[in-house]
Amino acid sequence: KVIWTVFVTILGYASSLPVGDDSLCTVEELAKYRIIFTGKWSQTAFPKQYPLYRPPAQWSSLLGVTHSSDYSMWKKNEYASNGVRDFAEKGEAWVLMKEIEEAGEKIQSVHGIFSAPAISSGTGQTSTELEVHPRHPLVSFVVRIVPSPDWFVGIDSLNLCEGDHWMDEVSIDLFPYDAGTDSGFTFSSPNFATIPQDTVTEITCSSPSHPANSFYYPKLKILPPIAQVTMVKLKKSQLGLSAPFINLPPKSNEIIDSVS
Amino acid sequence: KVIWTVFVTILGYASSLPVGDDSLCTVEELAKYRIIFTGKWSQTAFPKQYPLYRPPAQWSSLLGVTHSSDYSMWKKNEYASNGVRDFAEKGEAWVLMKEIEEAGEKIQSVHGIFSAPAISSGTGQTSTELEVHPRHPLVSFVVRIVPSPDWFVGIDSLNLCEGDHWMDEVSIDLFPYDAGTDSGFTFSSPNFATIPQDTVTEITCSSPSHPANSFYYPKLKILPPIAQVTMVKLKKSQLGLSAPFINLPPKSNEIIDSVS
Repeated sequence: KVIWTVFVTILGYASSLPVGDDSLCTVEELAKYRIIFTGKWSQTAFPKQYPLYRPPAQWSSLLGVTHSSDYSMWKKNEYASNGVRDFAEKGEAWVLMKEIEEAGEKIQSVHGIFSAPAISSGTGQTSTELEVHPRHPLVSFVVRIVPSPDWFVGIDSLNLCEGDHWMDEVSIDLFPYDAGTDSGFTFSSPNFATIPQDTVTEITCSSPSHPANSFYYPKLKILPPIAQVTMVKLKKSQLGLSAPFINLPPKSNEIIDSVS
Repeated sequence: KVIWTVFVTILGYASSLPVGDDSLCTVEELAKYRIIFTGKWSQTAFPKQYPLYRPPAQWSSLLGVTHSSDYSMWKKNEYASNGVRDFAEKGEAWVLMKEIEEAGEKIQSVHGIFSAPAISSGTGQTSTELEVHPRHPLVSFVVRIVPSPDWFVGIDSLNLCEGDHWMDEVSIDLFPYDAGTDSGFTFSSPNFATIPQDTVTEITCSSPSHPANSFYYPKLKILPPIAQVTMVKLKKSQLGLSAPFINLPPKSNEIIDSVS
């Protein structure tokens, strides 16, 4: 597990994770996890065009889902759904929630939905709980970067099941993605639909390769992580009455840093 | 139930509800509810200073808790906690989540926390699920009015237990409150701390009695509801796998209006 976590941190983005393969999960019970999202979008780490006013740099609500490989919330190099577009452009969750609901009803590919409150600055934390099921061991979520045209961070189909057991703890660095639905190079670009719609792409320090790009740092090899997510399995004794409150960490990076 | 719902709608604010008395709940099982929050903050209903830009009228994440009468999230005419202040002023949930967690650990007065995604306009909807326990049958929540100095809507200690059974459905009109921590008459007033802190007060069409107040409509007797919340008990058959998705309503007022 530790090796795997380090591997993720080095390669540095969600699409390098072993995703989608939920066929080998032989665990028999459900598991609950606390998920802690940490914004690392500071002016120090991302000085270029850092949004200070109306609105200042912040994060939307987090919206996530636990599911099987028959469902996909979003995927790099594929087209974003209408729900992901609304969420990435405006932080509006309703259509995405309906899409998830329909996937749950029609093809039983969804176990549960979860959300965590927004963060009012670039560097805060938020947290909630999620539940995974042996037939629905994958976790996906999105958080909109505010302000931005249609940029977000998230995880696509992270498998929390490792064969015959649930992973104890995992921590992943997050990097910005472009939903491909709104054209704009900078955080505060005016709304301008991308027609035809483009696919979801990762934004790096060199791509889009244009000096106006808010994340264009030609002297860097890779961007620093703009956020981080940690999922910690809750012990059985922590479940039940008052369980959601036991593992909320102090608002510091101590616990986060101790993971990797 | 129907009569009671009408009673609430007529009197029009949460503090007129039968609150806090959880001693008579003799139900033996837990209950789950879908909670649907509907913003009704339209320019038609609230034309004065209606926020159109940077940011336009919208709602923060919803943060709520199910609890016993030993815990209070917020209360009219009492001082807001630091957590409620942070949430009402900035939509920042972390301190409030920690306060709830501590109440859950220290005095076991809390059953669970829940949150629903933000709404990116004044008139949308959001939804999530909550669970109540016979010893923790009360529901409280807050949603920040964005933009505003420190204004919010919410429910304080609504008892979903009616003696020997759980309420099937309840719908409540919501009106704005001032957290008493930031001085400002208008939606876009600059940040200016209220020292000493004032108590939580309801904002009406005549109070604060000043023409600059964004909700000051001297020709009205009462403000129209700025939001509405509906809680619907989920049937046992709706629980379990995929349960969270069955009762998400269409985005219209039909279902909401049929309640009262």
